[in-house]
Amino acid sequence: MASSKSVTACVLIIGNEILSGRTQDINLNYISKNLGKWGIQVREARVIPDVEETIIETLNSVRKHFDYVFTTGGIGPTHDDITAVCIAKAFNKPVVRHPDIEARINTRPAPPEVMESRLLMARVPEGAELIDNPTGGPQGFFIENVYVMAGIPRVMQAMLSSLEGSLNSGDVVHSFSIRAYLGESQISEPLGQVQDEFSDLDIGSYPFLAEDRYGTMLVIRGTNLEDIQNAADAIKEIIISGGESPEILGFEQNA
Amino acid sequence: MASSKSVTACVLIIGNEILSGRTQDINLNYISKNLGKWGIQVREARVIPDVEETIIETLNSVRKHFDYVFTTGGIGPTHDDITAVCIAKAFNKPVVRHPDIEARINTRPAPPEVMESRLLMARVPEGAELIDNPTGGPQGFFIENVYVMAGIPRVMQAMLSSLEGSLNSGDVVHSFSIRAYLGESQISEPLGQVQDEFSDLDIGSYPFLAEDRYGTMLVIRGTNLEDIQNAADAIKEIIISGGESPEILGFEQNA
Repeated sequence: MASSKSVTACVLIIGNEILSGRTQDINLNYISKNLGKWGIQVREARVIPDVEETIIETLNSVRKHFDYVFTTGGIGPTHDDITAVCIAKAFNKPVVRHPDIEARINTRPAPPEVMESRLLMARVPEGAELIDNPTGGPQGFFIENVYVMAGIPRVMQAMLSSLEGSLNSGDVVHSFSIRAYLGESQISEPLGQVQDEFSDLDIGSYPFLAEDRYGTMLVIRGTNLEDIQNAADAIKEIIISGGESPEILGFEQNA
Repeated sequence: MASSKSVTACVLIIGNEILSGRTQDINLNYISKNLGKWGIQVREARVIPDVEETIIETLNSVRKHFDYVFTTGGIGPTHDDITAVCIAKAFNKPVVRHPDIEARINTRPAPPEVMESRLLMARVPEGAELIDNPTGGPQGFFIENVYVMAGIPRVMQAMLSSLEGSLNSGDVVHSFSIRAYLGESQISEPLGQVQDEFSDLDIGSYPFLAEDRYGTMLVIRGTNLEDIQNAADAIKEIIISGGESPEILGFEQNA
């Protein structure tokens, strides 16, 4: 059996507005789904405030433990946009203005004091390379394994799309879903046995309430399609033994 | 001037389904908003997988740094519900069945093997106390400063509501919002001066695009209402000097 290769990522969502509850984050979900399709598994995410010490400490802690770190937020032109400076400090690099970002900013005329502020968006740690921004705005950047993107979802999504094909990737985690109108407790024991049998898979069980009935969504995740299919067959049998009909949602590439 | 008292929290979202992108988390946002109203500030959140070692290490790291830790997810009856066991291990306590949860589970009859599975939801670390579950299902629990709640939003929300009035609280962080059709770069410099002047406040700047125009939402957060009002007046002046009309959204208790 081929050994599986994992490439892992941690996502850092930087911004007081997420922690205060003002803004519902949707970036983690988007990043997770897309990296998953590319064979990169998001294994942890942290939401942290716009506090220099916290950003630096968190970054230096996670960048050693994951193949990639993706950050969102804090790269605009105002006083609360401290991500680039913090990342430079975390890497012990000076902050410089990247000439390509500067050039892009300069294409849109502005009064001198406004231009000076806009050029704050050209700040990167020395040695950083660019992440393109297909919306036409200032680019993001990466340094070593840390990828720094905007917080505005539309801009983050554009930046992420520009990375497709350029990152290391591992095996894609596939998922196969089956739903049934059985409570989790009704299938808990045999389901645990299936999990024990297929220890390379991750079988998730999620209760739901629909049309006034309790049911369970079972999601089999893994990199080996044959094992997934065999585990799915075993789970179908469990549902049938429980007196219900399995509803097969089947394979999704990443979910 | 009265000194301000902060009570802090960290939220742990436990679940592979959030990290894979299958499920969009909405619990962090709900918890942050509600704790904020009660005078508890969420300062960090982590999304972690259903992996024993990760849950234990993360919990033991964050519970020392925040006044409270709130977890969601992993307290059902299936093999992937490992939160109670992990929390017991983190506290070096044995896992016991809480008699009050057991009694509640026993009120709903079930065949013996199903009941055995359902009783897995009565597992708590020895010494844990209960968080009521007004939906009528099994209760959550807390041990020291760690509060363990369900992952299903409706159940988590019910559990959280039952805690109102029972937690320590600090000063409530108020927020005052002003919007204007000015780009961030157009106000960046004077805005930074207002932030410097009111260092006890946290002034956030969030760009938006509406009706094909770029604008900025400015959010002043803090515990001192007079300072917030003064900073708001200064920001209104900046916007007027920039040739635009400030749109005053005013105070929200927590945002």
